[in-house]
Amino acid sequence: MVLEKVSVNRVYDGVLTKYKFKSAALGGLLAQFNLFIPVNASLTHKVPVLIYLAGLTCTEDTGAQKGSFISPAAKEGIALLFPDTSPRGAGVEGEDKDWDFGTGAGFYLNATKPAYATHYNMLTHITKELPQIIASNELGIPIDWTRQSIFGHSMGGHGALTIYLASLLGLGDNTQPKQYRSVSAFAPASNPSVSPWGIKAFNGYLQGGVEEGKARYDATELVAKCKSKENPVHVLVDYGSEDRFLKDGQLLPENFLRKARGVGYDEVQVRVRKQEGYDHSYYFISTFAADHIHFHANFLKA
Amino acid sequence: MVLEKVSVNRVYDGVLTKYKFKSAALGGLLAQFNLFIPVNASLTHKVPVLIYLAGLTCTEDTGAQKGSFISPAAKEGIALLFPDTSPRGAGVEGEDKDWDFGTGAGFYLNATKPAYATHYNMLTHITKELPQIIASNELGIPIDWTRQSIFGHSMGGHGALTIYLASLLGLGDNTQPKQYRSVSAFAPASNPSVSPWGIKAFNGYLQGGVEEGKARYDATELVAKCKSKENPVHVLVDYGSEDRFLKDGQLLPENFLRKARGVGYDEVQVRVRKQEGYDHSYYFISTFAADHIHFHANFLKA
Repeated sequence: MVLEKVSVNRVYDGVLTKYKFKSAALGGLLAQFNLFIPVNASLTHKVPVLIYLAGLTCTEDTGAQKGSFISPAAKEGIALLFPDTSPRGAGVEGEDKDWDFGTGAGFYLNATKPAYATHYNMLTHITKELPQIIASNELGIPIDWTRQSIFGHSMGGHGALTIYLASLLGLGDNTQPKQYRSVSAFAPASNPSVSPWGIKAFNGYLQGGVEEGKARYDATELVAKCKSKENPVHVLVDYGSEDRFLKDGQLLPENFLRKARGVGYDEVQVRVRKQEGYDHSYYFISTFAADHIHFHANFLKA
Repeated sequence: MVLEKVSVNRVYDGVLTKYKFKSAALGGLLAQFNLFIPVNASLTHKVPVLIYLAGLTCTEDTGAQKGSFISPAAKEGIALLFPDTSPRGAGVEGEDKDWDFGTGAGFYLNATKPAYATHYNMLTHITKELPQIIASNELGIPIDWTRQSIFGHSMGGHGALTIYLASLLGLGDNTQPKQYRSVSAFAPASNPSVSPWGIKAFNGYLQGGVEEGKARYDATELVAKCKSKENPVHVLVDYGSEDRFLKDGQLLPENFLRKARGVGYDEVQVRVRKQEGYDHSYYFISTFAADHIHFHANFLKA
C-alpha cells in the first residue's frame, strides 16, 4: 500500500494533505483521507492525533472544511485525521439508492452480509488500516500513535463512541484495548439498535441484523457493559435542543446518559450537554469545536 | 418586497438566518442571502454590518459555512451579510455553459448588454437593494446601516474593492459616496480588464466591453483615480504565494499595489500582504479570517 498525495493546503500554522491509497480493508478500492499536521510537529517531536468521523452523506472534506477544528488543533499542536464515511464505488446493488445507507453511510462497522462484507469495513479502516499505513509509509509523518483520541458527528458520533467503548472493553478483533484516550461526539446516534437509521444499517450490513448490531455497535449497549471503577472513561457529548433528528428519535443521547449513570459514571467521566437552540448542522458543530479540541488536548497532551 | 425566512441556525453567540425575496434588481427572480446577527444586537443597540462577497461558483452559503468569519464577528459584535454571487435561473442562453461566466459569476456589476441587463445587476443588489430591504422590512433587524464595510474573495474581492472605491469616488448611480468604512479582500481579481476572467466578463456583460469595465469595474484603474490626500482609505489585501490563479495572471494584486503606491497611499492605508505557502482555497481564507474581521472592527466600531 502506497500513499499518494492528492492535494496539499497550507492552513493556519500547519499543512492539510489529502492522500489516496488502495485500501485492503475496503476490498481494494481507492480510499481518500485528509490529514492536518501542525507546524510544531517533526520527527523529533511527534504529535498526538485526533480522528474525526463525519456523518451521513459526508466525505473526508466535510469536517476539514466546515468543522472549525483546525484553528484550535493548530494552537494545541494536535494532528487531525479526517477519513471518508464509506467505501466509494463498491458496486453493490442498491448502495446508491438511499442517503442513509450504502455510499456515504458506512456506519463505522465491518459488514458481515456477503454482499457488503468485501468492501464495507470502515471499522478496520479507521482503527487499524489508517494508523498502520500512515505510520509505516516512507513520508515520515510525525504522529505519535500511542496518543490517539476520536470524535465525530451524528453517524460519526456513533462511530466514535462505539469504537472508543469497544476498544476499552477489548471487544472484537479490530481494536487494540484502550487505543483511544478520550472520545467526544456532536449529536451522536447513541442507541442505533432502536432508531430508524441504526435498524436499517444493522439489518442491511449485518447477517445477524439488529441483534448483531446491538451486541457490538451500539454505544448505549456498550456503556452498559462498562464498570465505572474498572473502566475509567473520558466522554463528552453535545447535542442541540432544536436538532430535528433528535426530535425524530434518531439520536437518543438520553438513553446513553441514563445507562452511563446507571453503571456509575459521574459528570466528570461522562458529560452529556444539551445546548439550547442549536440544531444538527455544522453551525452547531463549529460553535463547540474549540471546546472539543481542548477537551481532547487534556488527555492527548497529558 | 417581503423577506421570507428559509432557515434559522443558532451559531456561536448569535443567529444565522437565510432569507429569500423577489429581487427587483435581479429582474424579479428569487434571491437568497444569509445574515448573521450577534447576540448583543437589539433595536436599542444596533450593530455594524460587514458584507462578504464570495467568488466564482459560490453561493450565499460558502462564506457562512467555510469562511470562519462568524466566530470573530460574534466576539466583535458585528453582523455579517452573505449575498449570492449571481442571479439564479435568469434563463439567458448560455448562462450555465461556463463556470466563470453567467450563473455563479455575476462579477458584482450591472450588465448593459440587453440579454443580461434585466437580471445581472449584482451591483445594485449589493449596494442598494439588500440594505434597503433588510432595513425596511418589519422584522426589526437591528443593523446600523451607517456603519457598513465590505470584503470578499477572488471575484468577490474584485467586487468588494471596486464597490468600495467607486463609492469613495462618487462614481455611478448605484452607490452612495463613502458608503463603506473599510474594504478587504482575499486573493482579489485586482485588474480584471487585463485578466482572462475579467475580459470574458466585461465582454459578456457590458455593451462597451473591456473599455466600459476598465472605467467602472477595475480596482487597479479605480485606485489610480484616487488622491491619497483627498480620499483616505482603509484597504487590506491578502493573497497566497501558491495560488494557482495568481500564477495564471487572474489576480494581479501587484498591479493594484503599484497604482496605489503611485497615487501616494502608504502601508497604513493600503496594505497588500503576500502570504507564503497559501493557495486560493477557503483553507487560506479561514487562516486569515479573524485578522480581516478585526481590521474592519477598527473602523466599524470607531
